[in-house]
Amino acid sequence: MPLNTAEFTIGITVSPQGREIIEKVMEAGPISRNDLTKLMGVSRSTVTKAVVNLCEQGLLVEQEYEESSGGRRPVLVDINPDFGTVIGIDMGITRLNLCVANFRGDILASKQMPITINDVSPERFLDSVNDEVVSLLHEAGATTESVRAIGFGVPAPVDEVTERVASPTKLSGWESFDIREYLRTYYPQATIRIENDVNLMALGEHKIGAGQGHDNLVVIKIGTGIGAGIICNGKIFRGSNGISGSIGHISIDRDGPICYCGNVGCLEKYAAGPAIVERAMAAINKGESDILADMLAAGDGRLTTEDIGMAASQGDPIANAIIVDSAREIGRILAVIVGFFNPSLVVLAGGVSQVGPQFVVAVHRTILEYSLPLSSQHLTVHKSEVTNQAGMAGAVLLALESVFILE
Amino acid sequence: MPLNTAEFTIGITVSPQGREIIEKVMEAGPISRNDLTKLMGVSRSTVTKAVVNLCEQGLLVEQEYEESSGGRRPVLVDINPDFGTVIGIDMGITRLNLCVANFRGDILASKQMPITINDVSPERFLDSVNDEVVSLLHEAGATTESVRAIGFGVPAPVDEVTERVASPTKLSGWESFDIREYLRTYYPQATIRIENDVNLMALGEHKIGAGQGHDNLVVIKIGTGIGAGIICNGKIFRGSNGISGSIGHISIDRDGPICYCGNVGCLEKYAAGPAIVERAMAAINKGESDILADMLAAGDGRLTTEDIGMAASQGDPIANAIIVDSAREIGRILAVIVGFFNPSLVVLAGGVSQVGPQFVVAVHRTILEYSLPLSSQHLTVHKSEVTNQAGMAGAVLLALESVFILE
Repeated sequence: MPLNTAEFTIGITVSPQGREIIEKVMEAGPISRNDLTKLMGVSRSTVTKAVVNLCEQGLLVEQEYEESSGGRRPVLVDINPDFGTVIGIDMGITRLNLCVANFRGDILASKQMPITINDVSPERFLDSVNDEVVSLLHEAGATTESVRAIGFGVPAPVDEVTERVASPTKLSGWESFDIREYLRTYYPQATIRIENDVNLMALGEHKIGAGQGHDNLVVIKIGTGIGAGIICNGKIFRGSNGISGSIGHISIDRDGPICYCGNVGCLEKYAAGPAIVERAMAAINKGESDILADMLAAGDGRLTTEDIGMAASQGDPIANAIIVDSAREIGRILAVIVGFFNPSLVVLAGGVSQVGPQFVVAVHRTILEYSLPLSSQHLTVHKSEVTNQAGMAGAVLLALESVFILE
Repeated sequence: MPLNTAEFTIGITVSPQGREIIEKVMEAGPISRNDLTKLMGVSRSTVTKAVVNLCEQGLLVEQEYEESSGGRRPVLVDINPDFGTVIGIDMGITRLNLCVANFRGDILASKQMPITINDVSPERFLDSVNDEVVSLLHEAGATTESVRAIGFGVPAPVDEVTERVASPTKLSGWESFDIREYLRTYYPQATIRIENDVNLMALGEHKIGAGQGHDNLVVIKIGTGIGAGIICNGKIFRGSNGISGSIGHISIDRDGPICYCGNVGCLEKYAAGPAIVERAMAAINKGESDILADMLAAGDGRLTTEDIGMAASQGDPIANAIIVDSAREIGRILAVIVGFFNPSLVVLAGGVSQVGPQFVVAVHRTILEYSLPLSSQHLTVHKSEVTNQAGMAGAVLLALESVFILE
């Protein structure tokens, strides 16, 4: 956990023992001093001293909790939810999710909105994001001064050291832009982390979604782009350069179309949202699907992946074939990943994953078809049930993990 | 690190602090009590007490070391190499590597021999392996009673809990065979670990081979079969069911030949040793290569992957094409793995990796061709320089890691 590097000089200073106690309380929830002592394998007096210090610092609170058995009410140590406010932001290409959480990570208010990111400069975009944050803080009854930590997810690779957006990305104008530095002008007192959106989704799924209890899991986001987020031994795994999960630009056909990344036949050109819409438009132009043509007309010349999912659910064989073809390409790549990494869970997230049940079924079938039964027999494949919440929840968690600096 | 589970009831009992000291000394080599104290962040007296106990137990020694500067000779703590003997065994389908090491992991004697594993029962095979171990112990000046730990690598998936051979494997008659229980009859006092051979190779490469300094690396063994071993954050990564790295039976062609695993078009059917030999035999039968035909005749009707490598080095275009085709299939799978996992190093090991320089070059080129520059630009691809030592060295390391039981 990157709790303490030169990059995170803004934060809350705690002792090593204090940090360990905070981590344990965050993991376990309200807990007695006794149980903390057992968990940490140190002396009771060490725990007592550290807990008292942290309570004085305002980071922890101790209070009586109801005992279900009706016995003496135990005094439990908990994170002080009012110590500060945490902002979670999950920026997509077409959609923004943001939330305000207390210092225990409970989400107090959240908001989702469609965005068109490439029409304005990063600065103007972030200004308008901040307007939304300020109004959400107000809704949650918190001030901008109370913000202690911000987690910000971007749909792009993120340089592990500078935390700037790396190439290739569909965020034109954002390459090398320093989001952290810009947000710092608004929140100089806050620890700010910029992270790839799918890594945050993986963290969110692990904590609040289908991934609870799965310590080795993979989230595949199939939206405007395609990327994977990895939880390995319970933590985000970023690889040796911080760019693990870059599967959208694996070439699956050397004779395929040229991709914006410069390569040919990338997975995204076959299975991401724009590729699916493009294939549906081609089918409409060839007069192959009346249902899709009607939807295009109803949408004033604009067709979405949701439309294609709806056409499939109405029995349109072309729409169904387009969805299943996309799913099969995802499934073939996943067969390699499942054989190699042996996760217990694959979560399919992003807009395309939500088009209809046949998408998840076709991905799962393809994995079973292309991989060894030994690798896939205990594998669960799920559609994300929290696809719009996972990223911002992960952003809050990462921000909270990063806020402490060792004294 | 699986230092203490119900499965490893045979071992050396140490305190939690004692175990931590042993781990630090194993990692760092000879070290002063002062440096240990700093490294562990505990009090000097705690370290002193634990070191004295471990010395009394015979696990550690303290001795003066030469100071290069000619100053006062420091007293350093080290593992007592004579505390016990460790056996490392790396069993392939056609080759056996074994070694005897001291308790510090230094290899004292080693041996390599060709084997034909499927002609005899597992019991008879292990009896003859043990004969070799006994003679190697003798050569190293050690007794069978001194053996405290054994690491045993098998070319098959290994059930994580029972440590028995799992399917599919080319080890016919070994499915579910309990190697550990059988070896225990010879070495009842020893901690015994059974592990997949490629996982052990990955551990060995990380410690003594090209993988030193690479905390996220992948070893691909291409021999009679194909498998991957993963080092993730410096440790063997086994996945959620202990079968990570099962890439030999990923289907790469639904119209391909039937594999012994029951699926069709498995990677092994295109890129492993037997597939390469089969293609060369077909070329000979069609009269396409005189050089290969001469080698077949010289080999009394038997052709090896080494022969094919030699034919390629003599300029035979057919032999070269067969090698490059195999390498390209490996490279395509690796492009997915590199994009997903973002390792800093890929090591190619096993017989096929050693056929000639064009193999490694073609694998590397294919990775670059099929993957995103962001993922592959900092990637190193190496042929293993220790392909026959890595597995048995990894077996010794795993055995040493597993020998301690917490009191």
